[in-house]
Amino acid sequence: MPRVITAFSNPLVKRVRALRDKKHRRDEGMFLAEGLRILAEAEAAGRLPRYIFHTADTAGHPLVRRLSAAAETAGGEAIETDRDILHKLSGKDNPQTVLGVYDEFATDLGAVDRSRADIWLVAQSLRDPGNLGTILRTGDAVGAGGLILIDDCVDPFSVEAVRASMGALFTQQVARARWPDFLSWLRAGEGLLVGLSLDTSEDYQAPRYPRPTFLLVGNEAQGLPADYAAACDVRVKIPMQGAADSLNAAVATAVMAYEVLNQHRRG
Amino acid sequence: MPRVITAFSNPLVKRVRALRDKKHRRDEGMFLAEGLRILAEAEAAGRLPRYIFHTADTAGHPLVRRLSAAAETAGGEAIETDRDILHKLSGKDNPQTVLGVYDEFATDLGAVDRSRADIWLVAQSLRDPGNLGTILRTGDAVGAGGLILIDDCVDPFSVEAVRASMGALFTQQVARARWPDFLSWLRAGEGLLVGLSLDTSEDYQAPRYPRPTFLLVGNEAQGLPADYAAACDVRVKIPMQGAADSLNAAVATAVMAYEVLNQHRRG
Repeated sequence: MPRVITAFSNPLVKRVRALRDKKHRRDEGMFLAEGLRILAEAEAAGRLPRYIFHTADTAGHPLVRRLSAAAETAGGEAIETDRDILHKLSGKDNPQTVLGVYDEFATDLGAVDRSRADIWLVAQSLRDPGNLGTILRTGDAVGAGGLILIDDCVDPFSVEAVRASMGALFTQQVARARWPDFLSWLRAGEGLLVGLSLDTSEDYQAPRYPRPTFLLVGNEAQGLPADYAAACDVRVKIPMQGAADSLNAAVATAVMAYEVLNQHRRG
Repeated sequence: MPRVITAFSNPLVKRVRALRDKKHRRDEGMFLAEGLRILAEAEAAGRLPRYIFHTADTAGHPLVRRLSAAAETAGGEAIETDRDILHKLSGKDNPQTVLGVYDEFATDLGAVDRSRADIWLVAQSLRDPGNLGTILRTGDAVGAGGLILIDDCVDPFSVEAVRASMGALFTQQVARARWPDFLSWLRAGEGLLVGLSLDTSEDYQAPRYPRPTFLLVGNEAQGLPADYAAACDVRVKIPMQGAADSLNAAVATAVMAYEVLNQHRRG
Protein backbone atom coordinates (compact mmCIF):
# COMPACT_ATOMS: atom_id res chain seq x y z
CA MET A 1 0.00 0.00 0.00
CA PRO A 2 1.33 3.42 -0.86
CA ARG A 3 2.15 5.94 1.79
CA VAL A 4 -0.07 9.01 1.37
CA ILE A 5 1.60 12.42 1.45
CA THR A 6 -0.36 15.62 0.99
CA ALA A 7 1.70 18.10 3.01
CA PHE A 8 4.21 20.38 1.32
CA SER A 9 6.14 20.38 4.58
CA ASN A 10 6.71 16.64 4.46
CA PRO A 11 10.47 15.99 4.74
CA LEU A 12 10.52 13.57 1.79
CA VAL A 13 8.77 16.14 -0.41
CA LYS A 14 11.44 18.65 0.54
CA ARG A 15 14.25 16.18 -0.15
CA VAL A 16 12.86 15.16 -3.52
CA ARG A 17 12.17 18.73 -4.54
CA ALA A 18 15.78 19.56 -3.72
CA LEU A 19 16.92 17.01 -6.32
CA ARG A 20 16.28 19.65 -8.97
CA ASP A 21 19.48 21.18 -7.63
CA LYS A 22 22.80 19.62 -8.68
CA LYS A 23 24.40 19.87 -5.26
CA HIS A 24 21.56 17.99 -3.65
CA ARG A 25 21.61 15.33 -6.35
CA ARG A 26 25.26 14.77 -5.65
CA ASP A 27 24.72 14.63 -1.90
CA GLU A 28 21.80 12.22 -2.20
CA GLY A 29 23.07 10.25 -5.19
CA MET A 30 19.54 10.32 -6.62
CA PHE A 31 17.72 12.02 -9.48
CA LEU A 32 14.20 12.63 -10.79
CA ALA A 33 12.45 11.16 -13.81
CA GLU A 34 8.90 12.07 -14.79
CA GLY A 35 6.14 10.42 -16.71
CA LEU A 36 4.91 6.91 -17.42
CA ARG A 37 6.82 6.66 -20.66
CA ILE A 38 10.21 7.39 -19.13
CA LEU A 39 9.52 5.19 -16.09
CA ALA A 40 8.57 2.36 -18.47
CA GLU A 41 11.86 2.79 -20.34
CA ALA A 42 13.69 2.66 -17.02
CA GLU A 43 11.91 -0.55 -16.05
CA ALA A 44 12.72 -2.11 -19.42
CA ALA A 45 16.36 -1.20 -18.82
CA GLY A 46 16.24 -2.87 -15.40
CA ARG A 47 16.11 0.27 -13.27
CA LEU A 48 13.59 0.52 -10.45
CA PRO A 49 12.73 3.75 -8.64
CA ARG A 50 13.69 4.24 -5.02
CA TYR A 51 10.52 6.29 -4.66
CA ILE A 52 7.57 6.39 -7.00
CA PHE A 53 5.07 9.26 -6.58
CA HIS A 54 1.67 9.02 -8.21
CA THR A 55 -1.75 10.59 -7.92
CA ALA A 56 -4.82 8.73 -6.71
CA ASP A 57 -6.24 8.51 -10.22
CA THR A 58 -3.14 6.80 -11.64
CA ALA A 59 -2.85 4.34 -8.74
CA GLY A 60 -4.72 1.75 -10.78
CA HIS A 61 -2.56 2.03 -13.90
CA PRO A 62 -0.92 -1.36 -14.55
CA LEU A 63 2.57 0.09 -14.87
CA VAL A 64 2.19 2.16 -11.70
CA ARG A 65 0.98 -0.90 -9.79
CA ARG A 66 3.79 -3.07 -11.13
CA LEU A 67 6.49 -0.46 -10.49
CA SER A 68 5.15 0.32 -7.04
CA ALA A 69 5.19 -3.35 -6.08
CA ALA A 70 8.65 -3.90 -7.56
CA ALA A 71 10.04 -0.79 -5.89
CA GLU A 72 8.63 -1.88 -2.52
CA THR A 73 10.07 -5.37 -2.90
CA ALA A 74 13.46 -3.83 -3.61
CA GLY A 75 13.27 -1.71 -0.45
CA GLY A 76 11.84 1.39 -2.12
CA GLU A 77 8.58 3.14 -1.47
CA ALA A 78 5.39 4.06 -3.35
CA ILE A 79 3.79 7.37 -2.42
CA GLU A 80 0.34 8.60 -3.31
CA THR A 81 0.10 12.34 -3.52
CA ASP A 82 -1.73 15.14 -5.34
CA ARG A 83 -1.07 17.27 -8.39
CA ASP A 84 -0.02 20.29 -6.35
CA ILE A 85 2.82 18.35 -4.82
CA LEU A 86 3.80 16.80 -8.14
CA HIS A 87 3.87 20.32 -9.54
CA LYS A 88 6.15 21.35 -6.72
CA LEU A 89 8.41 18.34 -7.24
CA SER A 90 8.72 18.64 -11.01
CA GLY A 91 8.62 22.42 -11.36
CA LYS A 92 6.34 22.05 -14.37
CA ASP A 93 3.04 23.88 -14.66
CA ASN A 94 1.47 20.77 -16.09
CA PRO A 95 3.27 17.97 -14.26
CA GLN A 96 3.24 14.33 -15.24
CA THR A 97 1.08 12.23 -12.94
CA VAL A 98 3.92 9.85 -12.08
CA LEU A 99 7.39 10.68 -10.89
CA GLY A 100 10.25 8.37 -10.03
CA VAL A 101 13.32 8.95 -7.91
CA TYR A 102 16.28 6.83 -9.02
CA ASP A 103 19.78 6.13 -7.81
CA GLU A 104 22.37 7.87 -9.96
CA PHE A 105 24.46 5.48 -12.07
CA ALA A 106 28.20 5.20 -12.06
CA THR A 107 29.69 7.09 -15.00
CA ASP A 108 33.19 5.64 -15.11
CA LEU A 109 34.75 5.47 -18.51
CA GLY A 110 36.35 2.17 -17.51
CA ALA A 111 32.91 0.54 -17.48
CA VAL A 112 32.27 1.37 -21.15
CA ASP A 113 32.49 -1.70 -23.39
CA ARG A 114 33.05 -0.29 -26.87
CA SER A 115 32.34 -3.65 -28.51
CA ARG A 116 28.68 -3.23 -27.49
CA ALA A 117 27.90 -0.78 -30.31
CA ASP A 118 29.12 0.57 -33.65
CA ILE A 119 28.54 4.24 -32.81
CA TRP A 120 29.53 6.17 -29.70
CA LEU A 121 28.71 9.82 -29.13
CA VAL A 122 31.18 12.09 -27.37
CA ALA A 123 30.42 15.66 -26.30
CA GLN A 124 32.83 18.20 -24.88
CA SER A 125 31.82 20.95 -22.43
CA LEU A 126 28.16 20.71 -23.39
CA ARG A 127 26.24 23.40 -21.53
CA ASP A 128 22.58 22.90 -22.33
CA PRO A 129 20.72 20.08 -20.56
CA GLY A 130 18.15 19.95 -23.35
CA ASN A 131 20.92 19.34 -25.87
CA LEU A 132 22.42 16.65 -23.66
CA GLY A 133 19.10 14.84 -23.30
CA THR A 134 18.33 15.20 -27.00
CA ILE A 135 21.73 13.72 -27.88
CA LEU A 136 20.99 10.75 -25.61
CA ARG A 137 17.63 10.30 -27.36
CA THR A 138 19.35 10.42 -30.76
CA GLY A 139 21.95 7.96 -29.52
CA ASP A 140 19.22 5.50 -28.64
CA ALA A 141 17.70 5.97 -32.11
CA VAL A 142 20.92 5.33 -34.03
CA GLY A 143 21.82 2.35 -31.87
CA ALA A 144 24.74 4.10 -30.22
CA GLY A 145 26.25 2.52 -27.15
CA GLY A 146 26.18 5.69 -25.16
CA LEU A 147 27.41 9.19 -24.59
CA ILE A 148 30.82 10.09 -23.23
CA LEU A 149 30.92 13.54 -21.63
CA ILE A 150 34.29 15.28 -21.80
CA ASP A 151 35.46 17.98 -19.39
CA ASP A 152 32.81 20.17 -17.73
CA CYS A 153 29.47 19.20 -19.19
CA VAL A 154 26.05 19.91 -17.78
CA ASP A 155 24.82 17.21 -15.39
CA PRO A 156 23.17 14.30 -17.28
CA PHE A 157 20.99 13.65 -14.22
CA SER A 158 19.42 17.13 -14.28
CA VAL A 159 15.64 17.20 -14.62
CA GLU A 160 15.84 18.91 -18.02
CA ALA A 161 18.35 16.42 -19.43
CA VAL A 162 16.36 13.41 -18.21
CA ARG A 163 13.18 14.94 -19.66
CA ALA A 164 14.74 15.67 -23.06
CA SER A 165 16.25 12.19 -23.20
CA MET A 166 12.74 10.70 -23.15
CA GLY A 167 14.10 7.73 -21.24
CA ALA A 168 17.31 7.25 -23.23
CA LEU A 169 19.28 8.13 -20.10
CA PHE A 170 18.30 4.62 -18.96
CA THR A 171 19.12 2.82 -22.20
CA GLN A 172 22.34 4.62 -23.15
CA GLN A 173 25.57 4.23 -21.24
CA VAL A 174 26.77 7.56 -19.87
CA ALA A 175 30.40 8.18 -18.97
CA ARG A 176 32.31 11.25 -17.82
CA ALA A 177 36.01 11.84 -18.34
CA ARG A 178 38.68 14.46 -18.71
CA TRP A 179 40.07 14.77 -22.23
CA PRO A 180 43.51 13.15 -21.62
CA ASP A 181 41.90 10.19 -19.86
CA PHE A 182 39.41 9.77 -22.67
CA LEU A 183 42.17 9.83 -25.29
CA SER A 184 44.21 7.21 -23.40
CA TRP A 185 41.19 4.99 -23.06
CA LEU A 186 40.22 5.46 -26.71
CA ARG A 187 43.68 4.64 -28.05
CA ALA A 188 43.84 1.46 -26.01
CA GLY A 189 41.26 -0.10 -28.32
CA GLU A 190 39.65 0.06 -31.72
CA GLY A 191 37.68 2.96 -33.15
CA LEU A 192 37.92 6.05 -35.32
CA LEU A 193 37.62 9.41 -33.55
CA VAL A 194 35.76 11.87 -35.77
CA GLY A 195 35.62 15.51 -34.75
CA LEU A 196 32.90 17.87 -35.94
CA SER A 197 34.74 21.04 -36.79
CA LEU A 198 34.19 24.27 -38.67
CA ASP A 199 37.91 24.52 -39.50
CA THR A 200 38.07 21.85 -42.18
CA SER A 201 36.94 21.45 -45.75
CA GLU A 202 36.30 17.69 -45.39
CA ASP A 203 32.63 16.96 -46.03
CA TYR A 204 31.01 14.73 -43.43
CA GLN A 205 29.84 12.33 -46.12
CA ALA A 206 33.33 11.78 -47.56
CA PRO A 207 35.01 9.45 -45.03
CA ARG A 208 34.08 5.78 -44.63
CA TYR A 209 33.17 5.28 -41.00
CA PRO A 210 34.31 2.00 -39.42
CA ARG A 211 32.75 0.16 -36.50
CA PRO A 212 33.04 1.59 -33.94
CA THR A 213 33.08 5.26 -34.79
CA PHE A 214 33.33 7.85 -32.01
CA LEU A 215 31.67 11.15 -32.94
CA LEU A 216 33.00 14.13 -31.04
CA VAL A 217 31.03 17.39 -30.86
CA GLY A 218 32.18 20.50 -29.02
CA ASN A 219 30.65 23.16 -26.83
CA GLU A 220 27.60 25.00 -28.19
CA ALA A 221 29.26 28.40 -28.42
CA GLN A 222 32.95 27.63 -28.94
CA GLY A 223 32.94 24.33 -30.79
CA LEU A 224 35.91 21.99 -30.34
CA PRO A 225 39.19 23.44 -29.06
CA ALA A 226 41.80 23.35 -31.84
CA ASP A 227 44.03 20.85 -30.04
CA TYR A 228 41.09 18.52 -29.44
CA ALA A 229 40.20 18.68 -33.13
CA ALA A 230 43.85 18.04 -34.02
CA ALA A 231 43.86 14.89 -31.91
CA CYS A 232 40.96 13.41 -33.89
CA ASP A 233 41.64 10.88 -36.66
CA VAL A 234 39.33 12.81 -38.99
CA ARG A 235 37.80 16.26 -38.86
CA VAL A 236 34.65 16.79 -40.86
CA LYS A 237 32.13 19.55 -41.41
CA ILE A 238 28.47 19.52 -42.23
CA PRO A 239 27.82 21.77 -45.25
CA MET A 240 25.87 24.94 -44.55
CA GLN A 241 24.24 27.03 -47.25
CA GLY A 242 22.89 29.95 -45.27
CA ALA A 243 23.93 32.99 -43.32
CA ALA A 244 24.73 31.18 -40.08
CA ASP A 245 27.96 29.33 -39.48
CA SER A 246 26.83 26.57 -37.17
CA LEU A 247 24.04 24.18 -36.31
CA ASN A 248 22.51 23.46 -32.93
CA ALA A 249 24.83 20.96 -31.19
CA ALA A 250 22.17 18.25 -30.86
CA VAL A 251 21.15 18.72 -34.50
CA ALA A 252 24.75 18.51 -35.73
CA THR A 253 25.30 15.35 -33.68
CA ALA A 254 22.17 13.78 -35.14
CA VAL A 255 23.00 14.64 -38.76
CA MET A 256 26.48 13.12 -38.28
CA ALA A 257 25.23 10.07 -36.40
CA TYR A 258 22.68 9.27 -39.10
CA GLU A 259 25.40 9.48 -41.76
CA VAL A 260 27.39 6.87 -39.85
CA LEU A 261 24.32 4.69 -39.32
CA ASN A 262 23.36 5.02 -43.00
CA GLN A 263 26.83 3.91 -44.08
CA HIS A 264 26.66 0.95 -41.73
CA ARG A 265 23.16 0.11 -43.01
CA ARG A 266 24.49 0.01 -46.57
CA GLY A 267 27.09 -2.46 -45.27
CA MET B 1 23.01 60.24 -29.01
CA PRO B 2 21.33 57.42 -27.11
CA ARG B 3 18.68 58.10 -24.55
CA VAL B 4 19.84 56.90 -21.12
CA ILE B 5 17.41 54.80 -19.09
CA THR B 6 18.31 53.42 -15.70
CA ALA B 7 14.92 53.24 -13.98
CA PHE B 8 12.97 50.00 -13.85
CA SER B 9 9.83 52.08 -13.70
CA ASN B 10 10.50 53.68 -17.09
CA PRO B 11 7.43 53.14 -19.29
CA LEU B 12 9.48 51.88 -22.26
CA VAL B 13 11.23 49.33 -20.04
CA LYS B 14 7.82 48.10 -18.93
CA ARG B 15 6.54 47.92 -22.51
CA VAL B 16 9.58 46.06 -23.79
CA ARG B 17 9.60 43.69 -20.87
CA ALA B 18 5.98 42.87 -21.64
CA LEU B 19 7.01 41.67 -25.11
CA ARG B 20 8.01 38.39 -23.49
CA ASP B 21 4.28 37.79 -23.32
CA LYS B 22 2.47 36.72 -26.49
CA LYS B 23 -0.56 38.94 -25.94
CA HIS B 24 1.61 42.03 -25.62
CA ARG B 25 3.62 41.12 -28.69
CA ARG B 26 0.39 40.89 -30.66
CA ASP B 27 -0.89 44.21 -29.29
CA GLU B 28 2.39 46.00 -29.98
CA GLY B 29 3.34 44.16 -33.19
CA MET B 30 6.91 43.97 -31.92
CA PHE B 31 9.27 41.32 -30.59
CA LEU B 32 12.65 40.97 -28.85
CA ALA B 33 15.96 39.74 -30.21
CA GLU B 34 19.11 39.52 -28.11
CA GLY B 35 22.80 39.60 -28.77
CA LEU B 36 25.18 41.11 -31.29
CA ARG B 37 25.21 38.02 -33.45
CA ILE B 38 21.45 37.92 -33.96
CA LEU B 39 21.23 41.69 -34.48
CA ALA B 40 23.96 41.42 -37.10
CA GLU B 41 21.98 38.71 -38.91
CA ALA B 42 18.94 40.95 -38.81
CA GLU B 43 20.88 43.85 -40.28
CA ALA B 44 22.28 41.64 -43.03
CA ALA B 45 18.70 40.60 -43.82
CA GLY B 46 17.67 44.26 -44.02
CA ARG B 47 15.84 44.49 -40.68
CA LEU B 48 16.53 47.41 -38.37
CA PRO B 49 15.47 47.56 -34.74
CA ARG B 50 12.81 50.01 -33.61
CA TYR B 51 14.67 50.21 -30.31
CA ILE B 52 18.20 49.09 -29.59
CA PHE B 53 19.24 48.76 -25.94
CA HIS B 54 22.90 48.55 -25.06
CA THR B 55 25.14 49.02 -22.06
CA ALA B 56 27.67 51.84 -21.74
CA ASP B 57 30.58 49.47 -22.40
CA THR B 58 29.14 48.24 -25.71
CA ALA B 59 28.26 51.77 -26.93
CA GLY B 60 31.54 51.91 -28.83
CA HIS B 61 31.14 48.57 -30.62
CA PRO B 62 31.07 49.24 -34.39
CA LEU B 63 27.91 47.24 -34.95
CA VAL B 64 26.12 48.93 -32.05
CA ARG B 65 27.10 52.36 -33.36
CA ARG B 66 26.05 51.49 -36.89
CA LEU B 67 22.74 49.94 -35.83
CA SER B 68 21.98 52.78 -33.43
CA ALA B 69 22.58 55.37 -36.15
CA ALA B 70 20.57 53.41 -38.73
CA ALA B 71 17.70 52.85 -36.30
CA GLU B 72 17.59 56.55 -35.42
CA THR B 73 17.60 57.55 -39.08
CA ALA B 74 14.67 55.21 -39.65
CA GLY B 75 12.73 56.79 -36.79
CA GLY B 76 13.77 54.33 -34.13
CA GLU B 77 15.67 54.94 -30.94
CA ALA B 78 18.94 53.89 -29.30
CA ILE B 79 18.90 53.47 -25.54
CA GLU B 80 21.82 53.15 -23.20
CA THR B 81 21.01 51.20 -20.08
CA ASP B 82 22.59 48.87 -17.51
CA ARG B 83 22.86 45.13 -17.08
CA ASP B 84 20.14 45.00 -14.42
CA ILE B 85 17.62 46.39 -16.86
CA LEU B 86 18.83 44.14 -19.67
CA HIS B 87 18.41 41.24 -17.27
CA LYS B 88 14.88 42.38 -16.57
CA LEU B 89 14.11 42.75 -20.29
CA SER B 90 15.56 39.43 -21.42
CA GLY B 91 14.70 37.32 -18.40
CA LYS B 92 18.14 35.70 -18.60
CA ASP B 93 20.49 35.53 -15.63
CA ASN B 94 23.38 36.36 -17.90
CA PRO B 95 21.84 38.70 -20.46
CA GLN B 96 23.38 39.72 -23.74
CA THR B 97 24.70 43.28 -23.69
CA VAL B 98 22.61 44.32 -26.70
CA LEU B 99 18.92 43.85 -27.26
CA GLY B 100 16.81 44.86 -30.23
CA VAL B 101 13.08 45.40 -30.52
CA TYR B 102 11.78 44.68 -34.02
CA ASP B 103 8.50 44.98 -35.84
CA GLU B 104 6.85 41.62 -36.34
CA PHE B 105 6.82 40.47 -39.98
CA ALA B 106 3.79 39.52 -41.98
CA THR B 107 3.38 35.74 -42.08
CA ASP B 108 0.96 35.35 -44.96
CA LEU B 109 1.31 32.18 -46.95
CA GLY B 110 0.49 34.17 -50.09
CA ALA B 111 3.81 36.00 -49.78
CA VAL B 112 5.82 32.77 -49.99
CA ASP B 113 7.62 32.41 -53.33
CA ARG B 114 8.37 28.70 -53.60
CA SER B 115 10.74 29.22 -56.52
CA ARG B 116 13.17 30.92 -54.13
CA ALA B 117 14.41 27.63 -52.66
CA ASP B 118 14.60 23.87 -53.20
CA ILE B 119 13.63 22.92 -49.67
CA TRP B 120 10.77 24.21 -47.53
CA LEU B 121 10.11 23.10 -43.98
CA VAL B 122 6.56 22.70 -42.72
CA ALA B 123 5.63 22.04 -39.09
CA GLN B 124 2.22 21.22 -37.68
CA SER B 125 1.11 22.17 -34.16
CA LEU B 126 4.66 22.57 -32.95
CA ARG B 127 4.59 23.32 -29.21
CA ASP B 128 8.14 24.00 -28.16
CA PRO B 129 9.69 27.39 -29.01
CA GLY B 130 13.19 25.91 -28.80
CA ASN B 131 12.24 23.34 -31.43
CA LEU B 132 10.75 26.04 -33.64
CA GLY B 133 13.85 28.21 -33.44
CA THR B 134 16.14 25.22 -33.96
CA ILE B 135 14.16 24.25 -37.08
CA LEU B 136 14.58 27.78 -38.44
CA ARG B 137 18.31 27.55 -37.76
CA THR B 138 18.47 24.22 -39.58
CA GLY B 139 16.44 25.69 -42.45
CA ASP B 140 19.01 28.41 -42.88
CA ALA B 141 21.79 25.80 -42.90
CA VAL B 142 20.20 23.59 -45.58
CA GLY B 143 19.32 26.58 -47.74
CA ALA B 144 15.60 26.21 -47.15
CA GLY B 145 13.35 29.08 -48.15
CA GLY B 146 11.51 29.14 -44.88
CA LEU B 147 9.22 27.51 -42.39
CA ILE B 148 5.47 27.19 -42.82
CA LEU B 149 3.63 26.76 -39.53
CA ILE B 150 0.41 24.77 -39.76
CA ASP B 151 -2.49 25.05 -37.31
CA ASP B 152 -1.72 26.11 -33.74
CA CYS B 153 2.02 26.37 -33.42
CA VAL B 154 3.99 28.19 -30.77
CA ASP B 155 4.69 31.83 -31.62
CA PRO B 156 7.79 32.21 -33.85
CA PHE B 157 8.35 35.68 -32.34
CA SER B 158 8.66 34.36 -28.78
CA VAL B 159 11.93 35.16 -27.04
CA GLU B 160 12.88 31.48 -26.83
CA ALA B 161 12.18 30.81 -30.52
CA VAL B 162 14.15 33.88 -31.65
CA ARG B 163 17.01 32.87 -29.36
CA ALA B 164 17.13 29.27 -30.60
CA SER B 165 16.95 30.43 -34.23
CA MET B 166 20.28 32.25 -33.76
CA GLY B 167 19.10 34.86 -36.23
CA ALA B 168 17.53 32.54 -38.77
CA LEU B 169 14.15 34.08 -37.97
CA PHE B 170 15.44 37.04 -40.01
CA THR B 171 16.83 35.04 -42.93
CA GLN B 172 14.08 32.43 -43.28
CA GLN B 173 10.60 33.25 -44.51
CA VAL B 174 7.98 32.36 -41.89
CA ALA B 175 4.36 31.75 -42.82
CA ARG B 176 1.34 30.61 -40.82
CA ALA B 177 -1.67 28.81 -42.26
CA ARG B 178 -4.49 26.43 -41.49
CA TRP B 179 -4.07 22.99 -43.05
CA PRO B 180 -6.72 23.28 -45.80
CA ASP B 181 -5.35 26.66 -46.89
CA PHE B 182 -1.84 25.29 -46.97
CA LEU B 183 -2.91 22.30 -49.09
CA SER B 184 -4.74 24.54 -51.59
CA TRP B 185 -1.72 26.81 -51.87
CA LEU B 186 0.68 23.88 -52.20
CA ARG B 187 -1.34 22.18 -54.94
CA ALA B 188 -1.50 25.38 -56.96
CA GLY B 189 2.19 25.02 -57.77
CA GLU B 190 5.09 22.62 -57.97
CA GLY B 191 6.56 20.59 -55.17
CA LEU B 192 6.49 17.21 -53.44
CA LEU B 193 4.91 17.08 -49.99
CA VAL B 194 6.79 14.60 -47.81
CA GLY B 195 5.37 13.67 -44.41
CA LEU B 196 7.50 12.34 -41.59
CA SER B 197 5.44 9.54 -40.14
CA LEU B 198 5.85 6.56 -37.85
CA ASP B 199 3.09 4.65 -39.69
CA THR B 200 4.99 3.74 -42.82
CA SER B 201 7.75 1.34 -43.77
CA GLU B 202 9.21 3.69 -46.42
CA ASP B 203 12.76 4.59 -45.50
CA TYR B 204 13.53 8.31 -45.71
CA GLN B 205 16.49 7.62 -48.00
CA ALA B 206 14.42 5.70 -50.57
CA PRO B 207 12.51 8.43 -52.46
CA ARG B 208 14.16 10.85 -54.88
CA TYR B 209 13.34 14.33 -53.67
CA PRO B 210 12.61 16.93 -56.38
CA ARG B 211 13.07 20.69 -56.21
CA PRO B 212 11.20 21.98 -54.35
CA THR B 213 10.49 19.45 -51.63
CA PHE B 214 8.21 20.38 -48.72
CA LEU B 215 9.07 18.47 -45.53
CA LEU B 216 6.18 18.15 -43.11
CA VAL B 217 6.78 17.27 -39.45
CA GLY B 218 4.03 16.89 -36.86
CA ASN B 219 3.50 17.84 -33.24
CA GLU B 220 6.15 16.71 -30.74
CA ALA B 221 3.89 14.35 -28.79
CA GLN B 222 1.31 13.21 -31.34
CA GLY B 223 3.14 13.32 -34.66
CA LEU B 224 1.14 13.99 -37.81
CA PRO B 225 -2.62 13.36 -37.77
CA ALA B 226 -3.45 10.36 -39.97
CA ASP B 227 -5.41 12.43 -42.50
CA TYR B 228 -2.58 14.93 -42.82
CA ALA B 229 -0.14 12.09 -43.48
CA ALA B 230 -2.57 10.61 -46.02
CA ALA B 231 -2.65 13.90 -47.92
CA CYS B 232 1.13 13.86 -48.39
CA ASP B 233 2.62 12.64 -51.67
CA VAL B 234 5.08 10.46 -49.79
CA ARG B 235 5.28 9.30 -46.20
CA VAL B 236 8.69 8.33 -44.91
CA LYS B 237 10.25 7.24 -41.64
CA ILE B 238 13.68 7.65 -40.19
CA PRO B 239 14.97 4.26 -39.04
CA MET B 240 15.32 3.83 -35.29
CA GLN B 241 17.35 1.07 -33.68
CA GLY B 242 16.68 1.64 -30.01
CA ALA B 243 14.01 1.44 -27.36
CA ALA B 244 12.34 4.76 -28.17
CA ASP B 245 9.92 5.21 -31.02
CA SER B 246 10.58 8.80 -32.00
CA LEU B 247 13.18 11.50 -32.35
CA ASN B 248 13.05 15.06 -31.13
CA ALA B 249 11.04 17.05 -33.71
CA ALA B 250 13.88 19.43 -34.56
CA VAL B 251 16.32 16.53 -34.86
CA ALA B 252 13.98 14.57 -37.15
CA THR B 253 13.46 17.64 -39.34
CA ALA B 254 17.23 18.14 -39.61
CA VAL B 255 17.99 14.52 -40.47
CA MET B 256 15.32 14.64 -43.20
CA ALA B 257 16.37 18.05 -44.50
CA TYR B 258 20.00 16.99 -44.83
CA GLU B 259 18.94 13.92 -46.80
CA VAL B 260 17.14 16.18 -49.28
CA LEU B 261 20.08 18.59 -49.43
CA ASN B 262 22.53 15.70 -49.89
CA GLN B 263 20.48 14.34 -52.80
CA HIS B 264 20.37 17.80 -54.36
CA ARG B 265 24.13 18.18 -53.82
CA ARG B 266 24.74 14.91 -55.68
CA GLY B 267 22.72 16.46 -58.50
